[in-house]
Amino acid sequence: MTIMEQARRGTSLLVQEVAQKEGVDPEQVRRGVASGTIVIPCNPIHDPEPCGIGAGLSVKVNVNIGTSRDMPHIEKEMKKVEVALRYDADAIMDLSTGGDIDAIRRAVIAASPVPVGTVPIYQTGLTAARKGALVDMDEDDMFNGIEVHAKDGVDFMTVHCGITQESVAWLKRAERLMDVVSRGGSFLTAWILHNDKENPLYKNFDYLLEMAREYEFTLSLGDGFRPGCTHDATDAAQVAELVTLGHLVTRCREAGVQAMVEGPGHVPMDQVETNVRLAKRLCHDAPFYVLGPLVTDIGPGYDHIVGAIGGAMAAYHGADFLCYLTPAEHLSLPTVDDVKEGLIASKLAAHAADRARGRGDERDRLMSTARKDLDWERMFELAVDPDKAREFRARGITAEEEGCSMCGDVCAIKILKEHLKR
Amino acid sequence: MTIMEQARRGTSLLVQEVAQKEGVDPEQVRRGVASGTIVIPCNPIHDPEPCGIGAGLSVKVNVNIGTSRDMPHIEKEMKKVEVALRYDADAIMDLSTGGDIDAIRRAVIAASPVPVGTVPIYQTGLTAARKGALVDMDEDDMFNGIEVHAKDGVDFMTVHCGITQESVAWLKRAERLMDVVSRGGSFLTAWILHNDKENPLYKNFDYLLEMAREYEFTLSLGDGFRPGCTHDATDAAQVAELVTLGHLVTRCREAGVQAMVEGPGHVPMDQVETNVRLAKRLCHDAPFYVLGPLVTDIGPGYDHIVGAIGGAMAAYHGADFLCYLTPAEHLSLPTVDDVKEGLIASKLAAHAADRARGRGDERDRLMSTARKDLDWERMFELAVDPDKAREFRARGITAEEEGCSMCGDVCAIKILKEHLKR
Repeated sequence: MTIMEQARRGTSLLVQEVAQKEGVDPEQVRRGVASGTIVIPCNPIHDPEPCGIGAGLSVKVNVNIGTSRDMPHIEKEMKKVEVALRYDADAIMDLSTGGDIDAIRRAVIAASPVPVGTVPIYQTGLTAARKGALVDMDEDDMFNGIEVHAKDGVDFMTVHCGITQESVAWLKRAERLMDVVSRGGSFLTAWILHNDKENPLYKNFDYLLEMAREYEFTLSLGDGFRPGCTHDATDAAQVAELVTLGHLVTRCREAGVQAMVEGPGHVPMDQVETNVRLAKRLCHDAPFYVLGPLVTDIGPGYDHIVGAIGGAMAAYHGADFLCYLTPAEHLSLPTVDDVKEGLIASKLAAHAADRARGRGDERDRLMSTARKDLDWERMFELAVDPDKAREFRARGITAEEEGCSMCGDVCAIKILKEHLKR
Repeated sequence: MTIMEQARRGTSLLVQEVAQKEGVDPEQVRRGVASGTIVIPCNPIHDPEPCGIGAGLSVKVNVNIGTSRDMPHIEKEMKKVEVALRYDADAIMDLSTGGDIDAIRRAVIAASPVPVGTVPIYQTGLTAARKGALVDMDEDDMFNGIEVHAKDGVDFMTVHCGITQESVAWLKRAERLMDVVSRGGSFLTAWILHNDKENPLYKNFDYLLEMAREYEFTLSLGDGFRPGCTHDATDAAQVAELVTLGHLVTRCREAGVQAMVEGPGHVPMDQVETNVRLAKRLCHDAPFYVLGPLVTDIGPGYDHIVGAIGGAMAAYHGADFLCYLTPAEHLSLPTVDDVKEGLIASKLAAHAADRARGRGDERDRLMSTARKDLDWERMFELAVDPDKAREFRARGITAEEEGCSMCGDVCAIKILKEHLKR
């Protein structure tokens, strides 16, 4: 029985653990998992700490790590895992495309108590490309690649099943500035165009479902045609793919397989809510996993901030899972420090949305009380990054312990304490 | 005749220059200035480049600089002015409270081609406090302080005229976690409570208007009771003050004096739109100038990001002017680098809102085209921070000129170029 099927029968330890972590009724979680509005990505080979993603739960944040051809070293990636865990990443995706990809993935899974995701088509495509041509990969290569990842314990996998001959036709018609910016999306588009055949991951979706059942991994239905610039947002190519993904969600549920849906991308602020509502509607309230969205294109070096704006808005309007963006996005593979900066930006966005949706403001209240009391140690403890907060305060030399170097002797809090006797 | 009165008579050079910069019809700007929905802060003694703030214009960003008791050095503040101008600040406020405050203000005005704002009550209060007690400042001290700033050429001044005996009574009744966090607000609250008298800036508002007419400075009606934590947002104290500010806006317009209204502060995401709409309604569509808003309290060290989320949302819903926040907020006086980081975050928020409101996506389109063409020099030119973008790309060693170290040999753009012949 799959996790979803178990939930349809009754409660389970997994469901109870998620409910406890979230502070919600286990029955609510059970129903969510049973119907597919909540997923708990959990491959028993890996057996991570249970992490619920979806309706009524707190917003989760994923950290992408992974090597590239130009930066293939495993050591750096393992440091990124460390920093991701330290700053409370809810999931980690290993997107390695350089060095010993199998070894890195296995090391990440071994080191990570949180769910691990991958995009198997990267490795499949790369192997084919390095042997001859990307477009020479065949159906077996694709499914075998997925099976290898599943056997290693990968908890969720991005599969670009919505890229079909039909959606590629929409892409051709679309007046896009950027065509395709998803790596996996570009692989499958190239494959379809070159081979003039249907996407095997779509054509043989039932086989994929069998595999997902057997190994218990969650499908993350990838948005290969996600807009790569704000100009291309919410166009025919994107929405045609989303329509297909909605249909595939239904097939996942029929098969008892957990599924979430991936979303854009680059989206101007006025289209963020629409994107979330459309995805939720077309995909039957499946958990929605967004990359950003980036609300402008002009921020390279600061895309973690641009993504935090879009991510907070998306989560406020119903997105369940935010993929972080780092300051290095569009420019280079992130460093360990970029991973930290990107993760904290996304965690703040997720928290702001949770707070606005009534999913908990306790930490905000505690911080505010500590501020009122000018209790700096407590403020540091409650901050998303105690070290940075401590360092920033320390660099301003203050003449007394209480205030800070911003206001010095004109601290509003101290003045009010003296004059507003409560 | 004041700028507002001139606009009521007909067009002016100031109006035309603003219209040209914004790419809008001069008649639209003239009407906005005449009715008070647009301000052009411009003290003729300073005579800055015309900067229009308000209805139908692009969102502007202000940078706060200024010394404190603990960091009183003018040199550092002048470097902040430099960096603010380099990264396109639309206005600069000098909030100095340490060192030779007069000399710093004059140096900032001399160095700044953009409008300069101040909060005169800081200096007045400090002078009184250093002589004996803050609450000993008298009416003459307050108005004389304002006049000194006006004579130096200050273009806009924050005046906390909405803190009245009545609003202080609301503050006392409010169940706030943080009471008052505005420095000027705390000065006047303490003054009212200690002296048991009405706020002179409210009682003698007509005298303030006379002064504003004489020297042509714009009033920025301060929100002394802005919430200092998300828990306190949109409460009776805040709204009672806003009601008063709305009345004062009317009196400004009757007197031909330009006025904008300041807003919060700390506001959870679900209350941002309400705050903007309420301020616009109660204040008769006066330009709305927000500090942040910060959508969570737990981000010290990252409040420029938290403020960018709130600022983008506020601007999208109609705020006209964003006061930046730096990573040092709540911790220390910002460094030069903090100023840069804070300004860029706010500029991105402002741009994202402009782009979503149809006020220009040309730069986004150009960036997207440069990306499609893998034209890195052009991308750097179009980025908010060309130096950082260049540096980030350079640190990833790539085996060829075209792609970047993120994807290496699996660049979606290159793959599509090969396979999707258009």
